[in-house]
Amino acid sequence: MDIITSKDNEVYKRLKKLKTKKYREIENAFLAEGRKFLELEQLPKVIIFREGTSQEIIKMSEKHDCRKIILNEKLFKELSSQENSQGVIICYSSRIKELKELENNIIILNKVSDPGNLGTIIRVADAAGFKDLVLTKGSVDCYNEKTVRSSMGSILSINIYYVEEDKIIDSLKEKGYKVIVTALEKDSIPYTKMKLEEKNAFIFGNEGDGVSQELILKSDEKVIIPIYGSAESLNVAMATGIILYDVRNKLENN
Amino acid sequence: MDIITSKDNEVYKRLKKLKTKKYREIENAFLAEGRKFLELEQLPKVIIFREGTSQEIIKMSEKHDCRKIILNEKLFKELSSQENSQGVIICYSSRIKELKELENNIIILNKVSDPGNLGTIIRVADAAGFKDLVLTKGSVDCYNEKTVRSSMGSILSINIYYVEEDKIIDSLKEKGYKVIVTALEKDSIPYTKMKLEEKNAFIFGNEGDGVSQELILKSDEKVIIPIYGSAESLNVAMATGIILYDVRNKLENN
Repeated sequence: MDIITSKDNEVYKRLKKLKTKKYREIENAFLAEGRKFLELEQLPKVIIFREGTSQEIIKMSEKHDCRKIILNEKLFKELSSQENSQGVIICYSSRIKELKELENNIIILNKVSDPGNLGTIIRVADAAGFKDLVLTKGSVDCYNEKTVRSSMGSILSINIYYVEEDKIIDSLKEKGYKVIVTALEKDSIPYTKMKLEEKNAFIFGNEGDGVSQELILKSDEKVIIPIYGSAESLNVAMATGIILYDVRNKLENN
Repeated sequence: MDIITSKDNEVYKRLKKLKTKKYREIENAFLAEGRKFLELEQLPKVIIFREGTSQEIIKMSEKHDCRKIILNEKLFKELSSQENSQGVIICYSSRIKELKELENNIIILNKVSDPGNLGTIIRVADAAGFKDLVLTKGSVDCYNEKTVRSSMGSILSINIYYVEEDKIIDSLKEKGYKVIVTALEKDSIPYTKMKLEEKNAFIFGNEGDGVSQELILKSDEKVIIPIYGSAESLNVAMATGIILYDVRNKLENN
């Protein structure tokens, strides 16, 4: 492998552009950083090493039959999103899919805006055994570097769909889904009392605004997480985790 | 109120020192930033305004009968821990207590090291109706600015204790507690199967290392959160939230 040392190198220029959402969409690719990703099975498009990276990382990357390049320290640092990088960045193809054949229980996020929250939700959704995550358009980009990082690899395991907010519920109801929404409404019931059907969709909302009124009105059931102490609310990622694990426990006990 | 403009002002110098753990302990005080804290009932020691802060914030602070000072922009910025500060910082007395009369179910954190995680745990513990949080010595300082911020005010509602790791379990058992630990051991059971007694203590561990072997060995029951997908693990704050809400649900249904 040659070491790329010029910022005008064409390959480097294309990789660098993947730090913006616009080019991630154009190139249908995104960057993930850290050796953890080398452990996964998914095939990278390109593996990017920092000049002088550890033999261990080189060895871990051997199982992946893909293009590999080396950047000098300066270029690598500009591509990296981490202060203490482990010296490896992996470029993957994006996996955003068309919402067609859904068979599982799914999660819908309505304009979640914090990339760290989205990553944390992807991680706990994966842990709780969910496979499909729908983001309403206007939500944060799931391939944001911070989202990829906080997903701890689960970004590569979950199917992600972007759908127009005004179409999602009708589309799900046609497919036979019960739609359950988290909302602080007067007639919301504690999440532990929710009634699951064969296929269920769970909607969680924006950090500040919650779920839009339109989606709440169209949903079949409204649930809340009761607050027993003096805290005002829970972070959306935490709320999602608590509910998804409760759903998983209900499913496992049936 | 006079406006403090000199960094040599004695009041300012003492407040500034509260940005370090050492002086928070010496002064038995800590800083919390943002208007949210003005809404709480707890009496501040000092309210610190940024010169020119909004009338709304001045008004919100009227209900608190305490010392109030104004800092010029430069000094305020040095005291602030936020990029876009709302222009108010509140100094409170620390509330770390002696572990004496415990009557409730309690949470023990064994060397949690990330201040944001600790704040998130304090928030969800409060939300789930827990009152007492024990930190083994060597855990991150609960009055770290990032912890205070991510607790979203709950830092003022929860009793916090620091205890030597090697004394905590014996001390709890003397008080009649059942000790339940989160641990990835061969004989760990799913958290949903845990058996609660009248008084229970729940131990969660360090981000990388989990709970120490010594604490695991001395505990009465070991539990795990099952992972159903390909995620390797859950963040400790998320794990704590999922388990605490499950415990709360069990307690409410009894």
